Amino acid sequence: MSNPESPNTVRRRAPVPRADCALALATEEIGDRWSLLILREAFFGVMRHDDIREDLGIPRSVLTDRLAKLVARGLLEKRPYREAGNRQRFGYSLTAKGRDLSLTFIALTHWSEAHVLGELGPVEIVDVETGRGLKVALIDPDGRVVPTERAMPKVRDRGP
Amino acid sequence: MSNPESPNTVRRRAPVPRADCALALATEEIGDRWSLLILREAFFGVMRHDDIREDLGIPRSVLTDRLAKLVARGLLEKRPYREAGNRQRFGYSLTAKGRDLSLTFIALTHWSEAHVLGELGPVEIVDVETGRGLKVALIDPDGRVVPTERAMPKVRDRGP
Repeated sequence: MSNPESPNTVRRRAPVPRADCALALATEEIGDRWSLLILREAFFGVMRHDDIREDLGIPRSVLTDRLAKLVARGLLEKRPYREAGNRQRFGYSLTAKGRDLSLTFIALTHWSEAHVLGELGPVEIVDVETGRGLKVALIDPDGRVVPTERAMPKVRDRGP
Repeated sequence: MSNPESPNTVRRRAPVPRADCALALATEEIGDRWSLLILREAFFGVMRHDDIREDLGIPRSVLTDRLAKLVARGLLEKRPYREAGNRQRFGYSLTAKGRDLSLTFIALTHWSEAHVLGELGPVEIVDVETGRGLKVALIDPDGRVVPTERAMPKVRDRGP
């Protein structure tokens, strides 16, 4: 992403206050390591409290707190499920709001492969219809890919 | 994103352990609300300790700690700058690793507009060359946009 002004310009303040900024508000919803890891479990289809706890090694009380917050914020929901030969139970799964984080999570996964792992990770993202690998990219209104370096934040003209 | 198995399948564990998972590792680098907010300042070009502190309302000691961590992880670097009529000073700016988070941040911004703000936010992402608005999308190897619902995580075949 390009700096909105020349590299020698030092900005004193962000162009919009935190309380109005979509990105800043998002960090209050998901800007917590355990919440991100719990959402990762949900993306993989791990939905039971005990399974998430053992998979993550998260203290029980912390998991209970974070699950309640993720449900309250509308990212997860409690849903009934029944496995063959068992009674109905409840587990956590992604709502539409939670599922819509997938682009963010895929972008973060690719960033981590490039800059943290330094190699392709064990999970790839494929097209369920064709099996081909998918990447996240910036596209213009015509659907054409634009290099990320050409992206620049701009305060919207709100009119009079 | 699609569940890798049928909706009635309850997975007991994520398909890859946390320690090997690119996404899980990324949460250790940036999965902290203050770190995300500090990176947001950097994307907007706010680079001085005092300016970041006042802009975010973050306690001085917390900011010092998070800046040191972000530098140690290679996301920010201290860089000299000089404003007209002033002596040289140092400020924080994004490294290539930090700048490469822009796709993730743009995806998160659009998610927040859709699901937190519920309307377009005050900042849009435009193409610095054409001024047109840009979106994040999934693309296949031919550069064609694929609907997000068709994305599925798949454990890579590592061969024998």
